[in-house]
Amino acid sequence: MSEITKNQIKLIRSLQQKKTRKEYGLFTVEGKKNVLDLIHSDFTIEELYSTEEVDLPINHVTISKKQLSQISSLKQSEGVLAMVKIKNFTPKTNARLTLVLDTINDPGNLGTIIRTADWFGVDQIICSSQTVDCYNPKVVQAAKGSLFHIPIVYTDLIDFLKDRKNVYGASLDGEAIGYNTKLESSTLVMGSESHGISEELIPFIQHLIKIPSYGKAESLNVAIATGILLNEFAK
Amino acid sequence: MSEITKNQIKLIRSLQQKKTRKEYGLFTVEGKKNVLDLIHSDFTIEELYSTEEVDLPINHVTISKKQLSQISSLKQSEGVLAMVKIKNFTPKTNARLTLVLDTINDPGNLGTIIRTADWFGVDQIICSSQTVDCYNPKVVQAAKGSLFHIPIVYTDLIDFLKDRKNVYGASLDGEAIGYNTKLESSTLVMGSESHGISEELIPFIQHLIKIPSYGKAESLNVAIATGILLNEFAK
Repeated sequence: MSEITKNQIKLIRSLQQKKTRKEYGLFTVEGKKNVLDLIHSDFTIEELYSTEEVDLPINHVTISKKQLSQISSLKQSEGVLAMVKIKNFTPKTNARLTLVLDTINDPGNLGTIIRTADWFGVDQIICSSQTVDCYNPKVVQAAKGSLFHIPIVYTDLIDFLKDRKNVYGASLDGEAIGYNTKLESSTLVMGSESHGISEELIPFIQHLIKIPSYGKAESLNVAIATGILLNEFAK
Repeated sequence: MSEITKNQIKLIRSLQQKKTRKEYGLFTVEGKKNVLDLIHSDFTIEELYSTEEVDLPINHVTISKKQLSQISSLKQSEGVLAMVKIKNFTPKTNARLTLVLDTINDPGNLGTIIRTADWFGVDQIICSSQTVDCYNPKVVQAAKGSLFHIPIVYTDLIDFLKDRKNVYGASLDGEAIGYNTKLESSTLVMGSESHGISEELIPFIQHLIKIPSYGKAESLNVAIATGILLNEFAK
């Protein structure tokens, strides 16, 4: 059993803030399933902590439950925490399927979108700088290991979209997709739940599409809409 | 400006617990959008509170921000809270599209599922008694008004399913649905994210289906999977 210093505890806790993550180039990953996916990825683990109860296949520091709860961002720690180097990706221009996210604020939604994109084999996710940071602990948690499977890039969306062809965007003003709509894999833009896709991006989108409604709800949750459209593209 | 009594505050706060909701047959609804949907529904409002800032089209009690924050279940109250009578529905046997939920534990997931079911015109939702209570404040919040559009029934699922025909169930062992799969509207059963559909229900399901995967994620979030499948049924 080891001890972590007060300074170490302070550093790890401070990584819950985006500013500190940027400054140190580090983020935290919690939970056994998440950490196992991390170990099998090409992310670099800086430090790995766990309690005695948790069995891990690689070298790690064993600490007390109390100390782990001090560095955990969860209400109830899952007994494992890794401090990991942030990876900086650059956008690929030859990707088969790109998901573009314009201002997704809710960390749970972003995490679920990353997990869903991973299920459907999305090659990269391009986020506007207003989108919540993908290394936010709540995003990492909701992504359930999928964060380590897909490159995620934060960049100017006009810059990214201006040379793309075959760009689709989800919009309540779009054309309803139907049983026979064939969507060609390319680029799908999703906007914020309250405001949709930003107006300045509309000129760079060739096909505005929407999911037909048969009931009374005013809108769909953005992660749900993303899942439904990715399923259409994947077919 | 009115005052609410300490006893009233205590009662309203206690409605955050399922046991008290059952005892009084009451639940709470917060947020202007949610309350407007409520007003246009056939649910009975027992009492409606708001702060001065919020404009409402029906009679209500104006209270201070401080008092509203005392009765609110939200970190940041949205300035409106209604105390509403729980409605008891009975299962319909002639519904066109029924969604059956077997042990959905997460309130956010259940709320999002209700909202999504409303978008796709689901006629009723039948829940196992292990499924989180749909009048839980977090479910009400995530459902964004859709709770007032669809009858939701908690009952024994074997009892409900035993006379149904054309029952579909989502399962990782199911048959992958494809571009040409035509799903006939009827009954869709969704199981828990960690354990899937309970074994004792399997004999009552005629078609086990799954959403094809093209990536590395082990599973989809249950609300996402429900959205994708309802979109297929709605087509």
